[in-house]
Amino acid sequence: MNKKVLKDILSEVRSKKIGVNEALKRLKHFPYQDIGIARIDTHRHLRVGFPEVIFCGGKTDDQIMKIVASMVKSKSPILATRISDTSARKLTKKYARARHNRLARTVLIEASGKAKRGENVGRVAVITAGTADIPVAEEAAVTCEAMGCNVEKLFDVGVAGIHRLTSQSESLHDFDVLIVVAGMEGALASVVGGMVGMPVIAVPTSIGYGASFGGIAALLSMLNSCSSGITVVNIDSGFAAGCAAVRIVGLLGDKK
Amino acid sequence: MNKKVLKDILSEVRSKKIGVNEALKRLKHFPYQDIGIARIDTHRHLRVGFPEVIFCGGKTDDQIMKIVASMVKSKSPILATRISDTSARKLTKKYARARHNRLARTVLIEASGKAKRGENVGRVAVITAGTADIPVAEEAAVTCEAMGCNVEKLFDVGVAGIHRLTSQSESLHDFDVLIVVAGMEGALASVVGGMVGMPVIAVPTSIGYGASFGGIAALLSMLNSCSSGITVVNIDSGFAAGCAAVRIVGLLGDKK
Amino acid sequence: MNKKVLKDILSEVRSKKIGVNEALKRLKHFPYQDIGIARIDTHRHLRVGFPEVIFCGGKTDDQIMKIVASMVKSKSPILATRISDTSARKLTKKYARARHNRLARTVLIEASGKAKRGENVGRVAVITAGTADIPVAEEAAVTCEAMGCNVEKLFDVGVAGIHRLTSQSESLHDFDVLIVVAGMEGALASVVGGMVGMPVIAVPTSIGYGASFGGIAALLSMLNSCSSGITVVNIDSGFAAGCAAVRIVGLLGDKK
Amino acid sequence: MNKKVLKDILSEVRSKKIGVNEALKRLKHFPYQDIGIARIDTHRHLRVGFPEVIFCGGKTDDQIMKIVASMVKSKSPILATRISDTSARKLTKKYARARHNRLARTVLIEASGKAKRGENVGRVAVITAGTADIPVAEEAAVTCEAMGCNVEKLFDVGVAGIHRLTSQSESLHDFDVLIVVAGMEGALASVVGGMVGMPVIAVPTSIGYGASFGGIAALLSMLNSCSSGITVVNIDSGFAAGCAAVRIVGLLGDKK
Amino acid sequence: MNKKVLKDILSEVRSKKIGVNEALKRLKHFPYQDIGIARIDTHRHLRVGFPEVIFCGGKTDDQIMKIVASMVKSKSPILATRISDTSARKLTKKYARARHNRLARTVLIEASGKAKRGENVGRVAVITAGTADIPVAEEAAVTCEAMGCNVEKLFDVGVAGIHRLTSQSESLHDFDVLIVVAGMEGALASVVGGMVGMPVIAVPTSIGYGASFGGIAALLSMLNSCSSGITVVNIDSGFAAGCAAVRIVGLLGDKK
Amino acid sequence: MNKKVLKDILSEVRSKKIGVNEALKRLKHFPYQDIGIARIDTHRHLRVGFPEVIFCGGKTDDQIMKIVASMVKSKSPILATRISDTSARKLTKKYARARHNRLARTVLIEASGKAKRGENVGRVAVITAGTADIPVAEEAAVTCEAMGCNVEKLFDVGVAGIHRLTSQSESLHDFDVLIVVAGMEGALASVVGGMVGMPVIAVPTSIGYGASFGGIAALLSMLNSCSSGITVVNIDSGFAAGCAAVRIVGLLGDKK
Amino acid sequence: MNKKVLKDILSEVRSKKIGVNEALKRLKHFPYQDIGIARIDTHRHLRVGFPEVIFCGGKTDDQIMKIVASMVKSKSPILATRISDTSARKLTKKYARARHNRLARTVLIEASGKAKRGENVGRVAVITAGTADIPVAEEAAVTCEAMGCNVEKLFDVGVAGIHRLTSQSESLHDFDVLIVVAGMEGALASVVGGMVGMPVIAVPTSIGYGASFGGIAALLSMLNSCSSGITVVNIDSGFAAGCAAVRIVGLLGDKK
Amino acid sequence: MNKKVLKDILSEVRSKKIGVNEALKRLKHFPYQDIGIARIDTHRHLRVGFPEVIFCGGKTDDQIMKIVASMVKSKSPILATRISDTSARKLTKKYARARHNRLARTVLIEASGKAKRGENVGRVAVITAGTADIPVAEEAAVTCEAMGCNVEKLFDVGVAGIHRLTSQSESLHDFDVLIVVAGMEGALASVVGGMVGMPVIAVPTSIGYGASFGGIAALLSMLNSCSSGITVVNIDSGFAAGCAAVRIVGLLGDKK
Repeated sequence: MNKKVLKDILSEVRSKKIGVNEALKRLKHFPYQDIGIARIDTHRHLRVGFPEVIFCGGKTDDQIMKIVASMVKSKSPILATRISDTSARKLTKKYARARHNRLARTVLIEASGKAKRGENVGRVAVITAGTADIPVAEEAAVTCEAMGCNVEKLFDVGVAGIHRLTSQSESLHDFDVLIVVAGMEGALASVVGGMVGMPVIAVPTSIGYGASFGGIAALLSMLNSCSSGITVVNIDSGFAAGCAAVRIVGLLGDKK
Repeated sequence: MNKKVLKDILSEVRSKKIGVNEALKRLKHFPYQDIGIARIDTHRHLRVGFPEVIFCGGKTDDQIMKIVASMVKSKSPILATRISDTSARKLTKKYARARHNRLARTVLIEASGKAKRGENVGRVAVITAGTADIPVAEEAAVTCEAMGCNVEKLFDVGVAGIHRLTSQSESLHDFDVLIVVAGMEGALASVVGGMVGMPVIAVPTSIGYGASFGGIAALLSMLNSCSSGITVVNIDSGFAAGCAAVRIVGLLGDKK
Repeated sequence: MNKKVLKDILSEVRSKKIGVNEALKRLKHFPYQDIGIARIDTHRHLRVGFPEVIFCGGKTDDQIMKIVASMVKSKSPILATRISDTSARKLTKKYARARHNRLARTVLIEASGKAKRGENVGRVAVITAGTADIPVAEEAAVTCEAMGCNVEKLFDVGVAGIHRLTSQSESLHDFDVLIVVAGMEGALASVVGGMVGMPVIAVPTSIGYGASFGGIAALLSMLNSCSSGITVVNIDSGFAAGCAAVRIVGLLGDKK
Repeated sequence: MNKKVLKDILSEVRSKKIGVNEALKRLKHFPYQDIGIARIDTHRHLRVGFPEVIFCGGKTDDQIMKIVASMVKSKSPILATRISDTSARKLTKKYARARHNRLARTVLIEASGKAKRGENVGRVAVITAGTADIPVAEEAAVTCEAMGCNVEKLFDVGVAGIHRLTSQSESLHDFDVLIVVAGMEGALASVVGGMVGMPVIAVPTSIGYGASFGGIAALLSMLNSCSSGITVVNIDSGFAAGCAAVRIVGLLGDKK
Repeated sequence: MNKKVLKDILSEVRSKKIGVNEALKRLKHFPYQDIGIARIDTHRHLRVGFPEVIFCGGKTDDQIMKIVASMVKSKSPILATRISDTSARKLTKKYARARHNRLARTVLIEASGKAKRGENVGRVAVITAGTADIPVAEEAAVTCEAMGCNVEKLFDVGVAGIHRLTSQSESLHDFDVLIVVAGMEGALASVVGGMVGMPVIAVPTSIGYGASFGGIAALLSMLNSCSSGITVVNIDSGFAAGCAAVRIVGLLGDKK
Repeated sequence: MNKKVLKDILSEVRSKKIGVNEALKRLKHFPYQDIGIARIDTHRHLRVGFPEVIFCGGKTDDQIMKIVASMVKSKSPILATRISDTSARKLTKKYARARHNRLARTVLIEASGKAKRGENVGRVAVITAGTADIPVAEEAAVTCEAMGCNVEKLFDVGVAGIHRLTSQSESLHDFDVLIVVAGMEGALASVVGGMVGMPVIAVPTSIGYGASFGGIAALLSMLNSCSSGITVVNIDSGFAAGCAAVRIVGLLGDKK
Repeated sequence: MNKKVLKDILSEVRSKKIGVNEALKRLKHFPYQDIGIARIDTHRHLRVGFPEVIFCGGKTDDQIMKIVASMVKSKSPILATRISDTSARKLTKKYARARHNRLARTVLIEASGKAKRGENVGRVAVITAGTADIPVAEEAAVTCEAMGCNVEKLFDVGVAGIHRLTSQSESLHDFDVLIVVAGMEGALASVVGGMVGMPVIAVPTSIGYGASFGGIAALLSMLNSCSSGITVVNIDSGFAAGCAAVRIVGLLGDKK
Repeated sequence: MNKKVLKDILSEVRSKKIGVNEALKRLKHFPYQDIGIARIDTHRHLRVGFPEVIFCGGKTDDQIMKIVASMVKSKSPILATRISDTSARKLTKKYARARHNRLARTVLIEASGKAKRGENVGRVAVITAGTADIPVAEEAAVTCEAMGCNVEKLFDVGVAGIHRLTSQSESLHDFDVLIVVAGMEGALASVVGGMVGMPVIAVPTSIGYGASFGGIAALLSMLNSCSSGITVVNIDSGFAAGCAAVRIVGLLGDKK
């Protein structure tokens, strides 16, 4: 993309359609849109495969509405995360295509035209250790689905009753990517990682008490996993895990 | 595999070739080999795609030699990490196929017969921020190569001179997976993650001083990356990053 | 249990009552019950001696009611911890056998039939350093009592007035297990551990201020106790201490 | 100033206008004003170039009004930071010159007479990585403007879309000082620091979630920046960054 | 014991065999022996069931020899932990009964007469996740054996190959106490704790690298275990785990 | 005290006024009073010089009233710290002698008869760095005054305007003990400690923001003070500092 | 620079001296030099005012020699930091212009031709709290001098004897920038910052013991300084402080 | 002192013996001596009661010798702490009065003339929990003795055998100040603090292993002590404790 733009500009200079100064000016005109409070990165969808996502934490309703309004013309899907119920209601009221997932605290506004890439290109399983980990898992699932993945959910299979998981071990092999969401001691990621050979993305959650320290226990546990090749994202960041899965699955899609 | 073994046993019971007690006993006979000081997981290569790796840290030369000896009959490649020069010499002396990478502190003993899967199935770029991050990067590269990936190295492109990286941005799109190795503030992972859409595995290194706290600064930086979907492995763990890349690339291979 | 089930299945295969595929299917049918939001581990009572406990933190009233409803048919006692007053009222209203301990934030629903094991098999003393540690101590006491232990409470005997404890030292020898609950600097555990030879389970609490850091001071103090053989559970986790005591006392019961 | 006062006192002693004891007493009479709850450092404006600033966090409305009342006679500007809306309303109601910046949580009361130094002596750019960093940036901007700097704001140019920043790189060279405000992984400071040679003051913010730990991730990232010569101030402290910029720009002013 | 001594003294006072002052003096004569650099607690064996153990870390050879010399007359066994090879040689040279376990870094000097309690009163399994955890496990085993327990060792059964453990799950039920020794992410303790109902003592080890932070990752993981009732001792403290097991097993012995 | 009681008992035994068993029983009768939820240490005033203080944090109004009621008969003063306004009102309503200091969050109930020791035995200066540190300083002052010290307050003399302090340096020499209360970077303690030779007790406060981490910055600063012989108490613990001053001043009183 | 290059290329395209593809290729040819193990940023001197500095920590002698050799042709000065004595000797032996400062652990190779900018453009004072902070201070001084600043050193003026500093306070006003180097509690930075109005760059050092935690105490102290506008660099990083001073002083130079 | 000097100067001005400028100059002439690498604070002995102490950590032999040489003319005692054996030998060789305490790592050079204050003015007990804490205790003892205190040592009375301490409780009342030195969980300080009413200075030591984290466990334990009025100094800082004791005892001396 950048390359083509650059080539066009150079060609126009060469053919003297535009002057050197005009070319200089245009070369500085990068693909983003400045709306004052934010700079919308409109080409990110093309560049890295997913749209500018609105992290709503710490943003006012007005800011959110304004940012969405500026984005909605583009053909990319729009995903708002960590959104309050109030903000979500405003969006669903204004945009017919907006779907609110209260548990995941997300609003997804699908692109009007169908996105070309990502037509169910990959199967992602989202697994949780406990019931309390579900909101984070839902955020991951919504993120994956927004990009066209097939998502299956396998909740509450923590290691305190390991047979709940081992009984499922055969079916785990049907997926392209596994997202493992766990708080407390986060041991589930290690156990799953030892069972399968496909990519495992571990999401530590802040679920726990006492010395779980808001997810640090699970985070350290996952980083130090004795099951080789598990990767980790930020505490409670279902969104990050979802994006990481999309990066992998997108790769898969490109090869097809 | 497990399923087939189970089916066979059940069939033999049905056909009364073996008794119930014999079946019970066999069902307990899982695929590992007990050599006293260690239990070699001989089937891991089939199960998760890479062999039992010998983490040599804190093991004596004798223990290492003994473990390798028990593994070498299997058809999987053997990878020894964090190996001392002394131990490495013993291995290379005894096993003709053993290759020592001093920088990466690894010894790789290729399987005698060629591994079926993993014939250059994926292209992995290993990128470092600085010269001092190279040993960790080499460990990642060796791990990937041991599994049959094509690895390219792009060293010393840290963000203090960001143009060194942006000048390469086109070529980054040729890879399936990027491994970004960085110490100090680890910003390189965020910058790379914002440029490309394929999987990015970030490896924080303990390179730095003062408040880098042995890699914590880079670790936190990478976990909190504003570039969505970057995943992180343990500090200095080139091996973990390599395995994570192999999981992805293996996935790719399966689809081909 | 597992062994018997397995034997039965194998026998049925042998006698051709069931086919191999049916056996395979049954072997995967592990003892848990999937109710969508949670997988109830109905056999845990038999396996490890206490029922699936419902940690209510972060669960909605609906989720709690649903989980209890699915459990109540089993013969195990049900223990809900960290329960809010509102949720507790709903449970006590619906289940006549439900007893609410507000201080301990627990609801206990005894099994309808009497549990066989655990008829006052052991004597557990729950000791606190201060008045503010009592809620954690009560959670430990409820947990022990739910499993049939005899519990005695000895509150507010902290080391600032060590004679309050030394005057009791004779009577401490009458117990099978001591649970020591202390916040601030947690020194009580060391002092008690130096006085007696039976198992001492230390529970650090988040009581304190300033540099107590939510219980870290007490936790570290207890882990580093110069009184040998003290074991430690998570901060504020009266429940964990209770379970640990039950594990010991249950052992005792088995030997009787 | 101190020197002159001292000289005058000594001269009066010499000329016997005052006695030794009187001189001793006066020498102890340092330039501050005791109003009971606070000691107003009335000469700080002369000494270090900016007035006593009222950090309103943890002060009552009464205390704030009392402190302002005692300051307002001096010719220095008065800056109240971290002020609540309620307190701000009281100030703007009482003092006509008081300007409230709600986003920055500041009230500025300009000196009645114009301050001599600081008439647009320097150009400061305040740059943020994201929209959520704006309040901290505004506090920095208000602080700089209160001291007579020209401030320009460049918001939401984080490294996830690095081209948004590189497109601006030429114009960055027009400033004397850059204040870079960023949360999450704080990588923006490193990238900016690698582009320019003038002073860069990095302000980590507590924006982020999970393992950002209230700004620690960004703080460590900035302290460990591989771009040489970046300096760092306290988390969320737009005020500190503003003062640091004023110190530099004041220096510049002195040379003119 | 204390009680009897007290009664005797009081009786002697009553019968006027001794005067009040003599009684006062004797009452202060507590059961320890002052050898200058240390106060040997000669009665601890009777009081809490195991002897004064010599933690050799930071003690000179001379100090160790002196302390042992003063202890050796008592009938308790003597256990020296964290002992250097040099010190150990000196002890084994001087005391025929001294046994050196180099891996565990212990020297054990059995009591000349047989200890009454502790004749194989309990069966303790010591389980490790990896080969590198063995020294800590050995320290636990030596401690248990010194007190008369039957110890079985089950090494290298970490969760990366979970079948190595599940294949053993039946035999785990034969033990009274399980000591689980694991570094890295310490997940083994949770998995074991979910399989059995007897006491599980978890020992985090400092084995690991990167973000294992010298055992903190394993420690937090174990404290936050979702398997209820696991207790934890200090990092690398096989000795503490051994003592904790002895406390439990001793309890068991008392009941027999 | 204890000694006399013991002697009396022994004499009574000798003179056969009481039997051995009665003596045994009495010897166990230690000087505290058990009121169920708490064990009041009624003799602490005699033993360590100040009464049982009621730390009200986490106690209900009922518990506080009950504890006070059981104490009020003793001749010691009663000090309730961290008390809520509601609880304080109840106490002042019921006990005429109760004085509430809202800033310090204390209620003091003087003993009805005058305490013998502590009649203005010492002069304590309580110094704060800023206005926001005053509540902690007031708690220290109330504690000292309750024990009969003369307290002087010197507030808001932080090092940002060091002349405010150096101008006072002469008068600092008039005190027996200095309590220095400071948040943020806590540098005031070092500066004061370098000026004077009498005991300096440093109290870190949680005042500050960003990387002050709730008082850790000030705590570490004070522990590492380059001014020799400064001692430190817990964060925000004006009470601890007051008690420490009373210990010193009491010592002084004893010598008079 | 970049702008000029770009303009030239565009002009050549316009004048058809070069084709579009050639232009494209040149535009990608960024100003760095790839020597395999490192990418030398040859234009950094022009861009940010100081040369590529070689951080020697973790580099082999060969790597250092190779990097220097590739840099030495450029007209920028070369600064090697954290260099070992051995490496330093090799450099001084090979390059006549190389000057080794053992205390600062630096080697400086001045540019053969004189650098245009930075002819004594600014006066920087480097102040230390103690004697042990001197190596860090020397690193800062060398860095400043390499860029043409006038540096004065004022060592061992810590706050334990505050008069040593206040006696110098007049002379502090003669400098453009103050670098304050302090370990332990780092209070010196606050005291200096309260005395002067020019930029103060604080460098925490790892000097101290116990709870100084390798410089964390000083770092937090400086970040939380109550003296407004102090900026902080990484622990022990005299180099970073020097660069920060050069950024300020260079600014000053540009205005002259 | 300062006051007198000032008065003299002012009187000389008044009597015109000296001019205003000369007075100004003298007023700046503060009582310290600049020897290049260090500024000796020669008047500290008078000001705060103890001499400039040489913390030898990180100083070369030459620096130490030079500093001692410049101090030895003054009448204050000289104390070198954390001194190596080599440096100590040099000092004892050169200065006849120098006494080396190898355990405490100190060299003390008594003043030639007797110090006036501090002739056995106070009785200090130094108590340790274990044998390994002795070096820190010795440093405290040497510091106290250097200033003329009577020091008694009571080693190895940790709480694991609490009777060793309680048997001593009467005799503790004979001291003016208690210094309690303890590592591991540091509980000894709380127990001692609950027994006595005089000042208790707690010194956490880095003795311990696992989660003692180099003394943090003991430090936190002591800061959070439930025994009121205990004060704490830096980890392992026997010197700081000694100085704190001297401050208290000196106070006592002043009153005599």
